[in-house]
Amino acid sequence: MTPPLRIALYQGPPGVPSSTGETLGALAGAARRAAGAGARLLLTNELYLTGYALGSDVVDRAEAADGPGAAAVAALAEEHGLAIGYGYPERDGTAVYNSFQLIAPDGARLAHYRKTHLFGDFEGAYFTPGDEAVVQADFEGVRLGVLICYDVEFPEPVRAHALAGTELLLVPTALMRPYEIVPQTIVPARAWESQLYIAYANRCGTEGEFTFAGLSALAAPDGTVRARAGAGEDLIIADVDPALLTASRAENTYLSDRRPELYGALG
Amino acid sequence: MTPPLRIALYQGPPGVPSSTGETLGALAGAARRAAGAGARLLLTNELYLTGYALGSDVVDRAEAADGPGAAAVAALAEEHGLAIGYGYPERDGTAVYNSFQLIAPDGARLAHYRKTHLFGDFEGAYFTPGDEAVVQADFEGVRLGVLICYDVEFPEPVRAHALAGTELLLVPTALMRPYEIVPQTIVPARAWESQLYIAYANRCGTEGEFTFAGLSALAAPDGTVRARAGAGEDLIIADVDPALLTASRAENTYLSDRRPELYGALG
Repeated sequence: MTPPLRIALYQGPPGVPSSTGETLGALAGAARRAAGAGARLLLTNELYLTGYALGSDVVDRAEAADGPGAAAVAALAEEHGLAIGYGYPERDGTAVYNSFQLIAPDGARLAHYRKTHLFGDFEGAYFTPGDEAVVQADFEGVRLGVLICYDVEFPEPVRAHALAGTELLLVPTALMRPYEIVPQTIVPARAWESQLYIAYANRCGTEGEFTFAGLSALAAPDGTVRARAGAGEDLIIADVDPALLTASRAENTYLSDRRPELYGALG
Repeated sequence: MTPPLRIALYQGPPGVPSSTGETLGALAGAARRAAGAGARLLLTNELYLTGYALGSDVVDRAEAADGPGAAAVAALAEEHGLAIGYGYPERDGTAVYNSFQLIAPDGARLAHYRKTHLFGDFEGAYFTPGDEAVVQADFEGVRLGVLICYDVEFPEPVRAHALAGTELLLVPTALMRPYEIVPQTIVPARAWESQLYIAYANRCGTEGEFTFAGLSALAAPDGTVRARAGAGEDLIIADVDPALLTASRAENTYLSDRRPELYGALG
């Protein structure tokens, strides 16, 4: 039996980062605390490296998937001996994506994902949507998947992950007020209905017109919330337990009770 | 602009009904109170006519869609001048279905639906699942749809209704403890994510091995719960407002932001 996987969610730093140096410094502190608490994986939020409310600056600050930010995060992962997941604006040719990268404790890339459901005017203006719905990685016996923010508000991509075997869905996010219904109701509903863990790591503080809601959480397939952050800067630690997942899926048989022959209108 | 549609949800009678006469008597009382409060539609729960925990008796107590129960409900609808929706075990040839019928104020049938997602050992043993995913009816300017209990716990059939234009989903249910997560979290999540109203009318009291959770509710597309019953016998009244629905769909654009080309794995 696979032992529980301890993870940490870093909700911060608050407000507009002055530079990538500031966010990398905060990440170093979070990684030190996470490793000290026994976590094997640290998840941060959407567009972590640069901050969210960049406006047109996002085009200039985007970097390649193997750019300097990736190298700096890889160095922190190796130093602290844990996997690190972070959002960043990615440049690929002329396109800019709202992307996420998961770096292994040895500094190698475990997963790379481009947000498929863009939210609002800012994202629609500057980002190209990704076209790969299900990105996964195996880590310490657990099948991980990745979605970003608005993606998880749609039941379809979460269901696609569950059907593809995802056990822990990593969701960096930049969820604003007044949409607290998402961390409070929608994320626990997704974990229950599709029988998987969801790690939802939000931003906090105010950037320009946006005030982020915090409330990062680890939601479990049995309907419980294993850990919940407050509204401000926070680091929460919780265990993803494959035994609980197995027991919950045996008790709550949504995945096998589906009737896909009736769902043709959805695809 | 279509005016608000006032509806009533009857959560009762508690416990095992002694006869169809008892449930029809309770329905008459609920219809009188609902009509007195200005409701135009009264929704009751799953297998309302007979009670839920029937075991093998369900086979003998099932009746045709135009059987004596339907005639009695039609008489009540005409007497009180409102539509009435109720669950019952339906016999059609050798098959028994877990069905629902909506009767208009003039006694005509508005909609008929057979539960498509059967729950647990009792239902699996005695009922044949329905094969029509989306059943709708138009009533006083509002497009109604029907699901039964376990159906609504799956995001797919609710999404199919929203895509087909359903504005108010009627959901008779027999939701047991300890699954309070369904009325408390899942039903409001469905209303929000698919941008429609959901009227969820539950049973209450204990029947054999089952204790029903009550907590009937009208969940709105803006994330609010417009009315909520307690755990015991209750009648709740609330308005379905097409103007609120229009405003909420303009603000929360889930239905138009979907990316169906990525959802092929679901159907």
